[in-house]
Amino acid sequence: MILHGYWRSSASYRVRVALNLKELEYEYRPVHLLKDGGQQKLEPYTALNPAQLVPTLEHNGHKFNQSLAIIEYLDSVFPETKLIPADPVEAAKARTIAFDLACELQPITNLRVLQYLVGELGQSEEGKLAWIHHWIHKAFTSVEARLQDTAGYFCMGDEVTIADVCLIPQVYNAQRFNVDLTPYPVLMTVYDNLQQLEAVQKARPEAQPDAQA
Amino acid sequence: MILHGYWRSSASYRVRVALNLKELEYEYRPVHLLKDGGQQKLEPYTALNPAQLVPTLEHNGHKFNQSLAIIEYLDSVFPETKLIPADPVEAAKARTIAFDLACELQPITNLRVLQYLVGELGQSEEGKLAWIHHWIHKAFTSVEARLQDTAGYFCMGDEVTIADVCLIPQVYNAQRFNVDLTPYPVLMTVYDNLQQLEAVQKARPEAQPDAQA
Repeated sequence: MILHGYWRSSASYRVRVALNLKELEYEYRPVHLLKDGGQQKLEPYTALNPAQLVPTLEHNGHKFNQSLAIIEYLDSVFPETKLIPADPVEAAKARTIAFDLACELQPITNLRVLQYLVGELGQSEEGKLAWIHHWIHKAFTSVEARLQDTAGYFCMGDEVTIADVCLIPQVYNAQRFNVDLTPYPVLMTVYDNLQQLEAVQKARPEAQPDAQA
Repeated sequence: MILHGYWRSSASYRVRVALNLKELEYEYRPVHLLKDGGQQKLEPYTALNPAQLVPTLEHNGHKFNQSLAIIEYLDSVFPETKLIPADPVEAAKARTIAFDLACELQPITNLRVLQYLVGELGQSEEGKLAWIHHWIHKAFTSVEARLQDTAGYFCMGDEVTIADVCLIPQVYNAQRFNVDLTPYPVLMTVYDNLQQLEAVQKARPEAQPDAQA
């Protein structure tokens, strides 16, 4: 199994967490999102992913894009540590938290959107930061409300699910951008609990071979 | 089954298509995204969805948010017309196209993001339209490339899947914003084929009780 990713990409981080939770071995191949104008926009990477986004997972001669599609695939093929709950109602709740973060937050604040805001739309650094903070607060407000119903030690009771896998990189980002997280006590308790897991520690951006100071 | 939605919301449109393909009856309750400053931000709707987004589906005393989580739920509980392929590799390909559209395009160009661009960030109408066109071209370029491998009569061979369900509203939006779609011949052929289905026709925004001229 080969994972093409970038240390600080949220979507790559999700897949690393999922692979580690399932105790799957993989080779890591860094794709530098800033070097050479973005290696994800150049051959040979674009042959792996026409969306020019990381990550890509290669397995059994197939190449897989989109982190959530990869995680659903891993859950079907390696069902030992299930990340999607078996009960359809619980599965929907877990996916809803995942999508609150992976659809409504991450793509709006990812590198290429921020580059477009500053470049083509001429926004200031201040405008960019306000944008990031705004969408983090929107998404975290929603997730904090959902967690009142669902959380135990983790997002969905005491089992790690796809919701947790999506939460981890978004809190990491929020901290990186100095977002005030005191309005989200349940979310932050869950996050702190997740940090106790070795699988999560191993997936940290700073623990990757392509991490930079 | 009760669907709370808005005629022109892409996410509501997806769920209508899925419900119709599965021949499930539902009561439709409109939530006006512009009236009263946005009814999705007010009680009683926010009790159904803390993310203040449409749609919400009510079923068996549960309330479900996030259109893709709803579609996955419907596929588990009403498996007669499967929208997620049974084979894990095919499922991953279908979900990848769905996420290219539902993560990387729709949330970046939805109403609240456009309102923030024009309001808080002071972008012109011209800047807003350039933004919409830019992200549509990005996503459609990726999907067109994927369809070279996967498409038959529909996105994934000749069976309708979650990829088609996500494609329909995004092409509808692209046409609404006069995006040149000639670079996407396979995508548009699939779209035209989908329009032949009665389930898709019934889900059109203009066919909804809350449609406006």
